[in-house]
Amino acid sequence: MQALWLEENQISLRAVQQPDKQNEALIRIRKAGICSTDLELVKGYYPYTGILGHEFVGEVLIASDPSWIGQRVVGEINAVCGSCEACLNGRPTHCENRTVLGIVNRDGIFSEYTTLPLKNLHRVPDSVSDEAAVFTEPLAAALEIQQQIQIKPTDRVLLVGAGRLGQLIAQTLVLTGCNLCVVARHPHQQNLLSACGIHLITQDEIQPRKWDIVVEATGSPDGFNLARQAVRPRGTILLKSTYKGEMNVNFSSIVVDEITILGSRCGPFEPALRLLESKEVDPTVLITAQYKLEDVLKAFEHAAQPGMLKVLVEP
Amino acid sequence: MQALWLEENQISLRAVQQPDKQNEALIRIRKAGICSTDLELVKGYYPYTGILGHEFVGEVLIASDPSWIGQRVVGEINAVCGSCEACLNGRPTHCENRTVLGIVNRDGIFSEYTTLPLKNLHRVPDSVSDEAAVFTEPLAAALEIQQQIQIKPTDRVLLVGAGRLGQLIAQTLVLTGCNLCVVARHPHQQNLLSACGIHLITQDEIQPRKWDIVVEATGSPDGFNLARQAVRPRGTILLKSTYKGEMNVNFSSIVVDEITILGSRCGPFEPALRLLESKEVDPTVLITAQYKLEDVLKAFEHAAQPGMLKVLVEP
Repeated sequence: MQALWLEENQISLRAVQQPDKQNEALIRIRKAGICSTDLELVKGYYPYTGILGHEFVGEVLIASDPSWIGQRVVGEINAVCGSCEACLNGRPTHCENRTVLGIVNRDGIFSEYTTLPLKNLHRVPDSVSDEAAVFTEPLAAALEIQQQIQIKPTDRVLLVGAGRLGQLIAQTLVLTGCNLCVVARHPHQQNLLSACGIHLITQDEIQPRKWDIVVEATGSPDGFNLARQAVRPRGTILLKSTYKGEMNVNFSSIVVDEITILGSRCGPFEPALRLLESKEVDPTVLITAQYKLEDVLKAFEHAAQPGMLKVLVEP
Repeated sequence: MQALWLEENQISLRAVQQPDKQNEALIRIRKAGICSTDLELVKGYYPYTGILGHEFVGEVLIASDPSWIGQRVVGEINAVCGSCEACLNGRPTHCENRTVLGIVNRDGIFSEYTTLPLKNLHRVPDSVSDEAAVFTEPLAAALEIQQQIQIKPTDRVLLVGAGRLGQLIAQTLVLTGCNLCVVARHPHQQNLLSACGIHLITQDEIQPRKWDIVVEATGSPDGFNLARQAVRPRGTILLKSTYKGEMNVNFSSIVVDEITILGSRCGPFEPALRLLESKEVDPTVLITAQYKLEDVLKAFEHAAQPGMLKVLVEP
């Protein structure tokens, strides 16, 4: 089969063997999404060699439990051992022995087929299109914020960054009724937010030390510094991006202001599917382009343009 | 009256006018404690000019409410406006208009007298000695940890640093029944902890990525790096010290491991007084030396020695 292979910061489309794992379901990819993490992996954010990609919707072809065969599914990206301390304490996404789809020691999904353990799969409701279902993984990541901290309806919440993930974060945070404002750099990002009735704010309009919660979704030192200036004493800065290198942080001011800084990664799939089914979140507005797998290199070039939203790939 | 004056990183004992504030209680200082923050202020950690010091026990001489006169008291160090957003939302220690005893725009207590608003004062129970009561402020700061986060009896808690504040943190954390281990550099610090039945651990013995909560009480990059290595995914690092300059932090690993970093400052006085009254905490074991106010410069020299615990000053 054809697959997008990453090796030493180079991606190429190449023929690879079709996956065949006895204990896992074989899935035919229907649609796949390009994520910032994919682009960062190509830049060398984390050493990985193999098939890239982790956002997908597919169809089960082979499974040990026949009731799954023919089902349309999305898949959790962490394949876990189930027996380490993290797994046994309800933190499976932090499994000490995990492999991660297209990220850590497990071939990803820019390809025709993939495999995953059955327990990673979630059935997609019929009313949810492939174009929406392919966003389940990043939408779950957005919901991880509310899995980690309470967002009160009265909270002032600032979201810094309105890219692929930022848009989904905005669409989920606005559902809490909180007082949400978003810093979005690009006009098309702003337009999408405005169309959802989400308030925009410019950097100059941000009141310093006034925001209960700030979600940093740019991955840049500038974004973090803006978040740090905006958050109120005893407020929370949530880190929701990939960051290159090290960040300089003034710890004394973190202590004096009793700030909480919190990292946030993978989230829960079932609530994401519920929000897609109820149409409370419509991620399809983010789709900028769709490519065939044979044009996946063009798709990656397209997705890497500044401020670009979602580019999909279809085998 | 005589007072320890800080100006441009120089301390000197000098004659100053006795304080006289109409709306505040006049307090005669009985005992005062030297804190790491005092030593850092002398080094220029934060620009401050005035009488140094904020840990004290004293006696009320003049007050608008006569029931306070003659009472032995300790005093909260943040003098607050009561009407700003922080005050009105239950965060008075973060008052936007606060002055802070011996730290921000308010003369401190290495002196014969001081003044504070009556609402800052707490009566000291008769059974609590001056030598114990003078620790109320740092003991309250130690308790701020449990005001901010839940420490479960089953939690593995690592405390890095066993200086003045670290010792009080250890004495309060051990009361939770949690699995507490302390990294203490100096033999006399180790001996005090052992005498309280608190477990010690060497840096080499610390299992990486295994500790639910790590309290960083050294204020050094080495201490933070040790804390970062020790904390488990989804664990919490609590910053409980003063830090010079900026710290380099790898944010991507904070995101991947979903770590919480939390600053912690002033804490609640009443619980501190209860623990002193019930003798559950005995801070007097930390007292290394006591000086008269006329020898306060010698007291500061003494307190600045590496690993030194508590040095008291008495007018």
